[in-house]
Amino acid sequence: MERNYKPDFTYQQFADQFTAELFNATQWALLFRDSGARYVVLTSKHHDGYTLWPSKQSFGWNAVDVGPKRDIIKELAAAVRSVTDLRFGLYYSLFEWFNRLWIDDKLHLLLQQHFVDYKVRPEQMELVQQYLPDIIWSDGDWEAPAKYWKSEEFIAWLYNDSPVRETVVTNDRWGFGTACLHGDFYNCADRFNPGVLQAHKWENAFTLDRTSWGQRFDVSLSDFMSSKDVIREIVSTVSCNGNVLINVGPTKYGTILPIFEERLRDMGRWLKVNGAGIYGSTPWIYQNDTQTPHVWYTRGKESDDVSTVIYAFVLEYPYDTNELDIYPLGKDINVFRNVLLTGLDLGMDSDVLTKATTQITMLGMEDTKIAWTANHNKLHILFPPKHHIDKRGLDYAWTFKITIAEV
Amino acid sequence: MERNYKPDFTYQQFADQFTAELFNATQWALLFRDSGARYVVLTSKHHDGYTLWPSKQSFGWNAVDVGPKRDIIKELAAAVRSVTDLRFGLYYSLFEWFNRLWIDDKLHLLLQQHFVDYKVRPEQMELVQQYLPDIIWSDGDWEAPAKYWKSEEFIAWLYNDSPVRETVVTNDRWGFGTACLHGDFYNCADRFNPGVLQAHKWENAFTLDRTSWGQRFDVSLSDFMSSKDVIREIVSTVSCNGNVLINVGPTKYGTILPIFEERLRDMGRWLKVNGAGIYGSTPWIYQNDTQTPHVWYTRGKESDDVSTVIYAFVLEYPYDTNELDIYPLGKDINVFRNVLLTGLDLGMDSDVLTKATTQITMLGMEDTKIAWTANHNKLHILFPPKHHIDKRGLDYAWTFKITIAEV
Amino acid sequence: MERNYKPDFTYQQFADQFTAELFNATQWALLFRDSGARYVVLTSKHHDGYTLWPSKQSFGWNAVDVGPKRDIIKELAAAVRSVTDLRFGLYYSLFEWFNRLWIDDKLHLLLQQHFVDYKVRPEQMELVQQYLPDIIWSDGDWEAPAKYWKSEEFIAWLYNDSPVRETVVTNDRWGFGTACLHGDFYNCADRFNPGVLQAHKWENAFTLDRTSWGQRFDVSLSDFMSSKDVIREIVSTVSCNGNVLINVGPTKYGTILPIFEERLRDMGRWLKVNGAGIYGSTPWIYQNDTQTPHVWYTRGKESDDVSTVIYAFVLEYPYDTNELDIYPLGKDINVFRNVLLTGLDLGMDSDVLTKATTQITMLGMEDTKIAWTANHNKLHILFPPKHHIDKRGLDYAWTFKITIAEV
Amino acid sequence: MERNYKPDFTYQQFADQFTAELFNATQWALLFRDSGARYVVLTSKHHDGYTLWPSKQSFGWNAVDVGPKRDIIKELAAAVRSVTDLRFGLYYSLFEWFNRLWIDDKLHLLLQQHFVDYKVRPEQMELVQQYLPDIIWSDGDWEAPAKYWKSEEFIAWLYNDSPVRETVVTNDRWGFGTACLHGDFYNCADRFNPGVLQAHKWENAFTLDRTSWGQRFDVSLSDFMSSKDVIREIVSTVSCNGNVLINVGPTKYGTILPIFEERLRDMGRWLKVNGAGIYGSTPWIYQNDTQTPHVWYTRGKESDDVSTVIYAFVLEYPYDTNELDIYPLGKDINVFRNVLLTGLDLGMDSDVLTKATTQITMLGMEDTKIAWTANHNKLHILFPPKHHIDKRGLDYAWTFKITIAEV
Repeated sequence: MERNYKPDFTYQQFADQFTAELFNATQWALLFRDSGARYVVLTSKHHDGYTLWPSKQSFGWNAVDVGPKRDIIKELAAAVRSVTDLRFGLYYSLFEWFNRLWIDDKLHLLLQQHFVDYKVRPEQMELVQQYLPDIIWSDGDWEAPAKYWKSEEFIAWLYNDSPVRETVVTNDRWGFGTACLHGDFYNCADRFNPGVLQAHKWENAFTLDRTSWGQRFDVSLSDFMSSKDVIREIVSTVSCNGNVLINVGPTKYGTILPIFEERLRDMGRWLKVNGAGIYGSTPWIYQNDTQTPHVWYTRGKESDDVSTVIYAFVLEYPYDTNELDIYPLGKDINVFRNVLLTGLDLGMDSDVLTKATTQITMLGMEDTKIAWTANHNKLHILFPPKHHIDKRGLDYAWTFKITIAEV
Repeated sequence: MERNYKPDFTYQQFADQFTAELFNATQWALLFRDSGARYVVLTSKHHDGYTLWPSKQSFGWNAVDVGPKRDIIKELAAAVRSVTDLRFGLYYSLFEWFNRLWIDDKLHLLLQQHFVDYKVRPEQMELVQQYLPDIIWSDGDWEAPAKYWKSEEFIAWLYNDSPVRETVVTNDRWGFGTACLHGDFYNCADRFNPGVLQAHKWENAFTLDRTSWGQRFDVSLSDFMSSKDVIREIVSTVSCNGNVLINVGPTKYGTILPIFEERLRDMGRWLKVNGAGIYGSTPWIYQNDTQTPHVWYTRGKESDDVSTVIYAFVLEYPYDTNELDIYPLGKDINVFRNVLLTGLDLGMDSDVLTKATTQITMLGMEDTKIAWTANHNKLHILFPPKHHIDKRGLDYAWTFKITIAEV
Repeated sequence: MERNYKPDFTYQQFADQFTAELFNATQWALLFRDSGARYVVLTSKHHDGYTLWPSKQSFGWNAVDVGPKRDIIKELAAAVRSVTDLRFGLYYSLFEWFNRLWIDDKLHLLLQQHFVDYKVRPEQMELVQQYLPDIIWSDGDWEAPAKYWKSEEFIAWLYNDSPVRETVVTNDRWGFGTACLHGDFYNCADRFNPGVLQAHKWENAFTLDRTSWGQRFDVSLSDFMSSKDVIREIVSTVSCNGNVLINVGPTKYGTILPIFEERLRDMGRWLKVNGAGIYGSTPWIYQNDTQTPHVWYTRGKESDDVSTVIYAFVLEYPYDTNELDIYPLGKDINVFRNVLLTGLDLGMDSDVLTKATTQITMLGMEDTKIAWTANHNKLHILFPPKHHIDKRGLDYAWTFKITIAEV
Repeated sequence: MERNYKPDFTYQQFADQFTAELFNATQWALLFRDSGARYVVLTSKHHDGYTLWPSKQSFGWNAVDVGPKRDIIKELAAAVRSVTDLRFGLYYSLFEWFNRLWIDDKLHLLLQQHFVDYKVRPEQMELVQQYLPDIIWSDGDWEAPAKYWKSEEFIAWLYNDSPVRETVVTNDRWGFGTACLHGDFYNCADRFNPGVLQAHKWENAFTLDRTSWGQRFDVSLSDFMSSKDVIREIVSTVSCNGNVLINVGPTKYGTILPIFEERLRDMGRWLKVNGAGIYGSTPWIYQNDTQTPHVWYTRGKESDDVSTVIYAFVLEYPYDTNELDIYPLGKDINVFRNVLLTGLDLGMDSDVLTKATTQITMLGMEDTKIAWTANHNKLHILFPPKHHIDKRGLDYAWTFKITIAEV
């Protein structure tokens, strides 16, 4: 700032530079659909207070008055709803860095609530009534208790009387101390990923640019998660009863950088094949394999009284066998790789995994019969040759669908 | 706009250009003092809603957040109060052209008052409590009744409980229908100058650039009132029980154009000499002379039980006598000009104006005995030679002070 | 700059702000005409190198490429030539503050002339060939000799072969040491006004804003010459064989500030009446009166074999007589003011100034017979009454036209 | 432009926006090194005439005067030379879209050469003398013959007298008709890639963003070459005696988008392993295989009197064998893939490729003995198992190094 802007350049002066002149909501919606996402959450107002819609309470500091001169929320909501089946949600930061009403309330030890009465509540209601969001993703709550924010009052209205009362879901950031305790899903903290099963539905909100929620130009490639990193994050999250919210910071021109698009499309391709084990799944008894690293499980939504479907995601290909013995002679079965899965063991004495009860396929390779053996409910699966796998474009992580009939 | 700005350039984007980088409050205050003014009224917020102070209700649309990055009101109030004896007042527009709360209230037929509750009232109170104005000059009231603006409530607080309750004065723009009916002084309309006596104290608010309240660059000299025009406006206003409020639009750099400064300094020089008949004066029985055009009267504040002081302002020099007869011979008394004043006639039969009862001087020329005669209370005053008058720099209008002892 | 611009903001970045969006060449031309001017000189390129025309040698740094996007020279030349009889000239600065060719030539001790060959000469010729100027006002010569600038070569072409060879005039700034020695008229130095007769025609180039050739916003009224100052400067210059070039710096919007317009129009009004003694005049034997201060003379162009016309400009009105004796009695001839003119004395023994030989009028008051007496060729002129003078709007300086028949 | 900029916004006004505020020459140099490049060519001036160095002939239209305020060439040259072994070259466009000297020369049917004399030649010499480039990459020549550009003269100086006469190389764009006929290397046309052997050294200049030489924001991922596309372009070019010049358009902030960095680093990783067959190689008898598609050859620089080294690049993995027969039984040799190479056939009757004469390795897998058979100089190579290849990170294209001893 000191080197590149005039002295006393204020944050507000940046608004003019945010032109969004290349913003194409339909393009965004299609990209999100192709990424395999099932919901979109747009930041309607971040801590800077700038609203992406023409808020009645934010004259001169919103996307219609300065910057794009467009109602970004309206455009994106319309596009998402018309060209995709995705749910459309809105993030809203309660507190604002610079708002004098908020600063003044703090100076008054939060004994007055002008900021809530004049700014927050009218905006929250405006958002709900005008854009009918499927998700309210509340944030910026931590400097004041829910009582100050009058959150109970708002939530009561939202679920009882608002136009979205039948459909809306919310997160857990409604006041100091509410995180991880209240809400349809817990968010707990940014990039929260506990690695173990959580009883209550939760969400892992993370950023493709590892250290920034916005878009930056002073980045290098190493700042970004690889596509493989993304898949790993998704699998480990879903296995533990979580959902993911993947942050992408757009440019001031309203575009999404190709590096982000690449990650999203890679993710979409993977999910198209492997999504059967992700969407609608519930946690399995085991989240990850205790003996074989980098293996995670979910319980498929196809499970019923007759059979149980378990998905095992193998995040690392089992390269490790001594390879020198087997080529160029090529006579040994060891040209194939196998993986040991111990997460199918239901603790019963009997051997459940028999050829009679058990069917195994690899997602994306259903045409190929998978070779496996079991021993005391420990499963050894033989991977098909790598060139067969690669030929089908299966990458990042490989999913075995294991169907066990109840006997 | 179409030729010189990018498409959809909004009014809000102009804020950055208003830098006030050369604004010097002390310089302004000294100029106002030298102009002979007795009060300064600053526009704290005009119809565009931009506040010259960091209003808590106007984040991102005030002089601290965008533009000057300075609290203009604070600086000017401090300067006026420390280097002058002038009163400091604040203009405040109730309505705003673009505020969505106000537009929404209108859409709801003014049955809701969100704009007043969330914006106007908090700002009015903030202004009074922080800057202790001597004058509240309310404006922008005309699209809604005082009931909508909750004006009675505000005025009750202002005069009973506010920190300025002992000193504040207000004008008459508090809601549709209040103009010319309520207030310490009536303003009635922009550039209001009825030309006849008004029973209630009133104010003539006019602009030196005849057609604009702001500063413009596409002007020519003919758009500006001349210094003589200004004096004429002052005299005719004060004679009819009015005060003047003279508008000067500063540049976006925070400076006052030299052409304005010239008018203000000319006015100051005139008032320094002739102000005795203006400041503290009250209307005289006659406002202007019924026989001699361009002559106006006031009753001096020095008047008491023993004598009455009347000021007669002669706005046009009496050039008209046939001049050819008298030069180069120069023998005729007609080289002098005289003026007939009929406004001293109190309707009494007796001749009041006698050498015994009456003293006449010209302001700025007190060292010179004025020649006059009277006839049935009609006064003929002989002007001193023009070169004597000019030598003293007396210009624009000439004031005779007529002191009549009560007999 | 440090407070109001981003670090390292360069001079070149200002070009965008010079929009000239309100520039109206016809309006300017009419104002110049009304000011009484007989020629207009436009700065085609100042020391910053920015050209007001699309110079082939100054890509990206001219008024068509950045800033106004208009050929300012073309517009003004056309307007001056179509709506006025004024001559149109062009100022051109030889050196440039920042041009690297020039800096490099200096580093090479002026032994190379790349700057002249690649930049100056092509531009000089472009200007002459495209805009056919009546005046070439050369400047910025002082850091190098005429030989470096190849000035002789250019002047030879200008007067012998150029399209303006029959009409063009030039000043004297063609290289270190040429000032006050060469040229159709000498300019010698900025604001040069020697106060005594100069043998060679010269020019007094001065600025209405006393300390700046450009337009500034951080000015106060006291920075500007008064209209009276301007008249005084003109009279004293013309009496000594000089012409004036009056600088007015326009705004970046392409407009002329009202304070400048006021001076120019006052000057125009004065010249309309008194110009007979200015335009086409030649120096008189005496330039100013040796006994009466503030009196200057010219010899009128109407002078011929039969009679000589002398103009005497009285710059200060003779207020000084003891005034107390004469009013209100008003009987004394002293109500009139007289002036002693000793500059008519041709050194002859005989009394030349007799009623038979001499006719005297005041310009603007030709209908009035002027009273005068002479004594040994010393002239006592009695001013008409000041109110008669004022009534005719005669101000700033009063001109007596004295016609003496040869006997 | 019409929607997002003010009317008549000129190209020149963009200069301010090119701040290069995040430009880090060392970072760039290191990235270029890591990409496997052996030379860097910077655009010193493109068709817009803007120079990235402070050209003496381009005042106000260069990177020091407007925009970055830095000498970009100097910084990058210094960085490339201090932290890498890469050669540093300069691109320079002869013609300019908007230069009035050039436009004027064209209007004069190129019979005058003001543009060359005043602009082009001085700048070309300035570049060579100040930055000592290893490569002069001339462009923008096509609208005029070499005679107009005085190219012979310049080249004579460059190779005989200039400070880089011992080292410099140049391309072939020196005037209409010179392309593909003159120069150290031929460039012929943008993205020139003939696919067959060229007798004279040539260069394939292409862009990672397929349709733009600059950086754009309105792109999607599909506009960019994939890393595999890049490898394919390099291999096919080098096999035919060409070099590559890979264009990357930086942002106005002076940064390189992550999507570009990703391609460059992928290329660098591939070249680190496979560069032995690229750098210093010469064309082999065959360029690509006439029987097996997607196979290209080069002759290694290690070749000598005793043995010949041939590199065979397999661009597509041979996935096609019927796979269903071999898994899960896994007993068949067919789990391995083989490739037929016919380009080793030197036309001799005898079987040259025998175990005694021939050694074969895969680059990046030198620790593994490659299985192969030969039949009438037709080579069948058996790929090692894909998982072994993948484990080593060998991707995009696989290179066999075939060493044949002369017998």
